[in-house]
Amino acid sequence: MADRSQPHPARLSRRRLLGGAAAAGAAGAAGIGWGAAAVTHRDHDRDPGLDTVAFYGAKQAGIATEPPLHAAFVAFDLKPGSRREDVIGLLKIWTDDASRLTQGKPALADTEPELAARPARLTVTVGFGPELFTAVALEDQRPHWLKPLPPFGIDKLDAAWCGGDLLLQICAEEATTVSHAVRVLSKHVKSLVTVRWVQRGFRNAARGQTMRNLMGSVDGTVNIAPGTVDFDRLVWDDGSSRPWLAGGTSMVMRRIAMNLETWDELDAEGRALTIGRTVEDGAPLSGTREFDVPDFAAVDRYGIPKIPPSSHIARAHRTHDGERFLRRGYNYDDAPAPGHMSNSGLLFASFQRDIDAQFLPVQRRLADFDALNQWTTPVGSAVFVIPPGVPGPGGYLGQQLFESAAAQR
Amino acid sequence: MADRSQPHPARLSRRRLLGGAAAAGAAGAAGIGWGAAAVTHRDHDRDPGLDTVAFYGAKQAGIATEPPLHAAFVAFDLKPGSRREDVIGLLKIWTDDASRLTQGKPALADTEPELAARPARLTVTVGFGPELFTAVALEDQRPHWLKPLPPFGIDKLDAAWCGGDLLLQICAEEATTVSHAVRVLSKHVKSLVTVRWVQRGFRNAARGQTMRNLMGSVDGTVNIAPGTVDFDRLVWDDGSSRPWLAGGTSMVMRRIAMNLETWDELDAEGRALTIGRTVEDGAPLSGTREFDVPDFAAVDRYGIPKIPPSSHIARAHRTHDGERFLRRGYNYDDAPAPGHMSNSGLLFASFQRDIDAQFLPVQRRLADFDALNQWTTPVGSAVFVIPPGVPGPGGYLGQQLFESAAAQR
Ligand code: HEM
Ligand code: HEM
Repeated sequence: MADRSQPHPARLSRRRLLGGAAAAGAAGAAGIGWGAAAVTHRDHDRDPGLDTVAFYGAKQAGIATEPPLHAAFVAFDLKPGSRREDVIGLLKIWTDDASRLTQGKPALADTEPELAARPARLTVTVGFGPELFTAVALEDQRPHWLKPLPPFGIDKLDAAWCGGDLLLQICAEEATTVSHAVRVLSKHVKSLVTVRWVQRGFRNAARGQTMRNLMGSVDGTVNIAPGTVDFDRLVWDDGSSRPWLAGGTSMVMRRIAMNLETWDELDAEGRALTIGRTVEDGAPLSGTREFDVPDFAAVDRYGIPKIPPSSHIARAHRTHDGERFLRRGYNYDDAPAPGHMSNSGLLFASFQRDIDAQFLPVQRRLADFDALNQWTTPVGSAVFVIPPGVPGPGGYLGQQLFESAAAQR
Repeated sequence: MADRSQPHPARLSRRRLLGGAAAAGAAGAAGIGWGAAAVTHRDHDRDPGLDTVAFYGAKQAGIATEPPLHAAFVAFDLKPGSRREDVIGLLKIWTDDASRLTQGKPALADTEPELAARPARLTVTVGFGPELFTAVALEDQRPHWLKPLPPFGIDKLDAAWCGGDLLLQICAEEATTVSHAVRVLSKHVKSLVTVRWVQRGFRNAARGQTMRNLMGSVDGTVNIAPGTVDFDRLVWDDGSSRPWLAGGTSMVMRRIAMNLETWDELDAEGRALTIGRTVEDGAPLSGTREFDVPDFAAVDRYGIPKIPPSSHIARAHRTHDGERFLRRGYNYDDAPAPGHMSNSGLLFASFQRDIDAQFLPVQRRLADFDALNQWTTPVGSAVFVIPPGVPGPGGYLGQQLFESAAAQR
């Protein structure tokens, strides 16, 4: 699986190495994000706009793949009356288009083939929303955790950013590549679906460092590292409850607005106490460097916890090893509404094998209390199952689901 | 002037060389864009996110500067009752903020100083809309060409994308850098202005190649090259009619929607005849390579012009040498309106010394007839004067204007 995110053999072996090290040190240690793992060899004379990520594989790309600079998340609704055959047809089109575009080749009948020439590490990841299973009359195959998240007291959801029958997560190093892929994949299925929402994001960091969100914090320090045993166990389904889902996972997408106006009134110390880490270098308040493992039991000389129990990381931290997931979010910064100065936040995207077991306990804890809530507001929410990858040419995305159904009939 | 866009001496000398060559061959020849000029040396071990463009200089940066990947254009309106002193105060704040941010340093009272650490060739360019001169009681100093463009038959303008008293053009190689600069510069003056519109764009191309727009075409082939005598003459005001404007210029901003749905119905030949160049490699229909000079007199064996007189480049081509301007546009691709699949087009930005003399005749010709009009619709329009640069610390943007006024009193 690690190989699909790694165009260069040199990077692959280095990633494996780091993966191994992280796995070995994982007992009690913070996970290692891509930040730490990403210091890899690059062929300087090569145009990075030509780099590709493999499309075929047991798992879909775009999850274990190191996140590139740009992303678009697009949710679609099936038009009323869509049948199972329509959905299979759509998935075959997406499979064919993605298998070409990700490799720098135009899609069939690509009307702007010139824009396909720079794949720039393009990945296309497809997800199914809860209602899709109803539309294709496969409710019995729907994972039990695939349902809208329960409402939380902190939510101020706007229906315009919620739900969706089908998801495309499209990531690449270049915005033009993302734009072209969104357009090709959307229009090739426009007879079958309507666009529900489009959310675009970006992330920047020096190579080998963790990206910063728009509050200024390094975001993604404690994460699970692709290529580790933990990652495989926590992210990828093994098919034990639903054979068709082996190699699949789930995605939670939360659009979280930041109130930067009030955040800006807070000084560095207030921010550090809110997050549990300094904003400046991301070090936990119990330590001195970003990758120091937070010690939630550490107290100062007055016996006061160094990391406030109300801080975001104290509340978000797992209470046991199974309460973990991959965070792979992007910043957003859209045009402000009339009378406003900004409209920005985080496109929080997490991947986990089981939303109920891994994600929900953490989200509930944060909703119950998290010092950060004063400055952040969830305005969108959606969940998707990410079906397994397409092992090779001839297959299509979701085939395992539809064939398991056929076998049952 | 070329030096402000060139962090490396090696790039500078190469630019000068190419500039000289272009100037020498300019009689009758197409100009050479940045595309051709941009094949330059890069220090591979350096983090390009740390590259800076000089802020101080006789001209503002962001015009002769090779356009980086990302841009935000933000227009503001002065709050009612703003006085000349308020505007001067605002410009002093912007000057101070921009002089720091562009050099990778936090602004004064920067609440996210961490986001200032990656300047990524950030430039901040300030413009004044027509009404600003009324607000500061300096109507007599307003250039005669600084007024809203006349209405054109092709326009379907949305007031939400038109006008503005003040403009910020913020460009950088990284989206996070642009986002931070927009926020700092906006909020530091929020007591004085409201945001009128924000338009974000991107452009991608291999180093040394011309960017492609979202119709697939290479866009920017025929352009005037920074560092040439022509550029200096066509873009920069020499102060002969208004001393304060020496080293300034003007900007026309047109938001032009593309109807990609119908463009996609057109085959490669139809597209080539519409533009006058092939989409594939951008070669004029009278030649074989992108930088071949279009020969509008060339005919095929039936005597039919190779480049249709109705094509975009035939209509846009200058009828005399003074009808030229710098095009420095960006693609846009925003979230589609409900029921739509896409919302994309071109943020057309042009710079010229005199809008009436250089830009308007071309825009009128295109509005009267241009085969491309069938697929493009101007939805936004704004004009700004770009005051000269700040020669060194202690000065402020627009100072020449306000001091010329003071001298007159
Ligand atoms: C705008 C909203 C959010 C912001 C700005 C934010 C920011 C951060 C920051 C700065 C950190 C510390 C650095 C790191 O380890 O990445 C962090 C950690 C974390 N966040 Fe968030 N976060 C947000 C929402 C969420 C949500 C919705 C969840 C899950 C429901 C979540 C789960 C976590 C977890 C699990 C950690 C690691 C905690 C640990 O140290 O074990 N965050 N977040
Ligand atoms: C969405 C709208 C537009 C698109 C897609 C577009 C696209 C193009 C393309 C593909 C070219 C040929 C390559 C090149 O030389 O750059 C071109 C050339 C040109 N365009 Fe446009 N353009 C648009 C709007 C405009 C507008 C509004 C103006 C000015 C009013 C303009 C002025 C020019 C000029 C002066 C040239 C060079 C013509 C020559 O060969 O001398 N364009 N444009």
